[in-house]
Amino acid sequence: MASESVELPGVMPRGFVWGAVRAGIKASGKLDLALAVAPGGANAAVMFTRNQVVAAPVTVGRRHLAATGGSVKAVLVNAGNANCATGEAGIRACVDSCRAAADQIGCIFDEVFPSSTGIIGVPLPAEKIVAALPQALAALGDSAGHAELFATAIMTTDTRMKVAEAVIEAEGVEVRLFGTAKGAGMIHPQLGPPHATMLVYLFTDISATAAELRELLEPAADASFNSISIDGDTSTNDTVLLLASGASGVALNDATRPAFAEALRLVCGSLAHQIVDDGEGVTHVVTLEIAGAKTVEDARRVAKAIAHSPLNKCAWSSADPNWGRLIAAAGYSGVAFDPERLNVWIGDQLVFERGMRSALFDRAAAHQTMSAREYTIRLALGEGDASCTFLTCDLTEEYVRINADYST
Amino acid sequence: MASESVELPGVMPRGFVWGAVRAGIKASGKLDLALAVAPGGANAAVMFTRNQVVAAPVTVGRRHLAATGGSVKAVLVNAGNANCATGEAGIRACVDSCRAAADQIGCIFDEVFPSSTGIIGVPLPAEKIVAALPQALAALGDSAGHAELFATAIMTTDTRMKVAEAVIEAEGVEVRLFGTAKGAGMIHPQLGPPHATMLVYLFTDISATAAELRELLEPAADASFNSISIDGDTSTNDTVLLLASGASGVALNDATRPAFAEALRLVCGSLAHQIVDDGEGVTHVVTLEIAGAKTVEDARRVAKAIAHSPLNKCAWSSADPNWGRLIAAAGYSGVAFDPERLNVWIGDQLVFERGMRSALFDRAAAHQTMSAREYTIRLALGEGDASCTFLTCDLTEEYVRINADYST
Repeated sequence: MASESVELPGVMPRGFVWGAVRAGIKASGKLDLALAVAPGGANAAVMFTRNQVVAAPVTVGRRHLAATGGSVKAVLVNAGNANCATGEAGIRACVDSCRAAADQIGCIFDEVFPSSTGIIGVPLPAEKIVAALPQALAALGDSAGHAELFATAIMTTDTRMKVAEAVIEAEGVEVRLFGTAKGAGMIHPQLGPPHATMLVYLFTDISATAAELRELLEPAADASFNSISIDGDTSTNDTVLLLASGASGVALNDATRPAFAEALRLVCGSLAHQIVDDGEGVTHVVTLEIAGAKTVEDARRVAKAIAHSPLNKCAWSSADPNWGRLIAAAGYSGVAFDPERLNVWIGDQLVFERGMRSALFDRAAAHQTMSAREYTIRLALGEGDASCTFLTCDLTEEYVRINADYST
Repeated sequence: MASESVELPGVMPRGFVWGAVRAGIKASGKLDLALAVAPGGANAAVMFTRNQVVAAPVTVGRRHLAATGGSVKAVLVNAGNANCATGEAGIRACVDSCRAAADQIGCIFDEVFPSSTGIIGVPLPAEKIVAALPQALAALGDSAGHAELFATAIMTTDTRMKVAEAVIEAEGVEVRLFGTAKGAGMIHPQLGPPHATMLVYLFTDISATAAELRELLEPAADASFNSISIDGDTSTNDTVLLLASGASGVALNDATRPAFAEALRLVCGSLAHQIVDDGEGVTHVVTLEIAGAKTVEDARRVAKAIAHSPLNKCAWSSADPNWGRLIAAAGYSGVAFDPERLNVWIGDQLVFERGMRSALFDRAAAHQTMSAREYTIRLALGEGDASCTFLTCDLTEEYVRINADYST
């Protein structure tokens, strides 16, 4: 029923146009100003970072959605500068950009939703954004190619565009969902309602209220973006925005909700996976399945302790089946469990049981499993019935090189 | 009054002998079995890791001290194998080693305190330890050279021996304290009473009960070993052991306690610093001073969020004054504060104030400060009067190389 893909066959949700231009914010001179417009308006649900230090666009975006009750006409994103820790001047730069966009689009100022991503603490040159706006408006269009321009312009250290889409059939009509994301470092989103430098934009032409969208977005984001970590650093700018134009003519209701919720889950899951897969320096994507926990919260604490352990992440980079580091991290996670009841698998192989190395442990076979780009590590705690799935990656010399060279 | 040094001038505490031999546990063939004996006995205080997965020697050592009420005749340490996650066989290997040592030394089995450090999950070859014991006993002596043999044999990925000492004058007598430590990775000790692959052994010839020693050890370890992190990974084997032979004839009392406590603090502080300075791949040692917190616990949470942030650690490796990453980490630490009241200094330079980059920020000067091997970063939260000092280090490509190659 729902399909996902990272190639866009061109069935874009109706009611939106996208575009992007070079505003001169990225030092590289690449596309850095992305604009999406919903000429007929869209209802919106948003989740922001839970970091207490938040960027100016997060402050302004939250205010705008509160003022309009969740109504959005345009999304204005710049890459290359996070507009974070920029004080009152940063707020002014954001507001000035939104106002200029509203003037040119012909909407009210609060209906422009702003985002920024890039370096922290450097003043945002709003004048460059304002100057580039007429060209951005001229670039708008409703094709997959236009949406790809948007998806490309929001990238920073990403090596590739991240897009996903799903289509459901309802009342004889195709209801479409398109999502795009950016983010490759400082990735450990902890999104809160209504809070989220991962940026995710989800566009659909279903008809739904802001409250209905929020109800669907939170569980979908929780199972996807809130269940990934590249480096454990939670950004000041993370944002997930879901916009519904209603232009399909199909309403979200009891008949359409299950299929739409599943489509949203698939698109969010695909984007979250693409983010980890394109993580800075990543050579291995590891799915952590933590089972047998007393609570989901416990399962997540164990998953995050392992996902954030440099020793485990380094071992993964060389496909080293050093399961001792897995149980050490579980042991300091703060979750109570009996090591004698803990079972650990690398792929399908049981490597640890009854407090010690499994008799089945086969180092060469485990190394073989871990040599694949992607595999699963499973811990069963033996304490209860709760579980979680968490997606993470290895830590490589390339990650260190990328992040030692970022601002200098 | 107290002096510290990493060179041993030879004033070793009386009442102890030290030695080490090659038992064939380290694949390198280096010294790997260290033995210290207190022929007249010693009172002991110990702190173990709070990791729930603990190595066999931690289980056995805890039992032994409980059984003897804190009396120790010998310390038996092997490097090259952590004897952790080795099940009942690991406990037996530890007990067999202690029993063989007790037989040869002529003490009761419970008076031997065992430690292991090295790889997790590989059976400990107790027979190699037992076979090497006669030679280890023959190697014992009371000189600084003998103590250095002990300090060398406990090393794993350490690049250098870590020793510190202090001498106080009391009642016309020199009271001596000698400490040695190992540890370069999996370093984020979280020692609990009476819990602690950092290994620390502190030998003194003052006369004190086990209870008196514990009272002095906990604050000294808290300000030193519990205030450092290399990689955020808390080991399954961390142990800090303080032994007092009483052989100086000077008792711990109201007159001698202040000077001895200060000497202990200095020795612990020196060893903790040496551990971070010799951390795997470390090129910069960073002191985090967190001030203006509501509680010491809050100050420590902010310090640990920064100390464990890969993005900050990578920036330090290239002396990159990317203070945005500092405030982002503080922001996700879970400690509530107002970013508008936060001040951040790199060395003496104020880099962030009133929610934005300080007007005084001078990138070149900050880069210069951070180019030194060692410097201080200070955050004043503006929320209260509590503070902490925390010692950490950068994350380098060399760290990744070391830990990607460990067990394979």
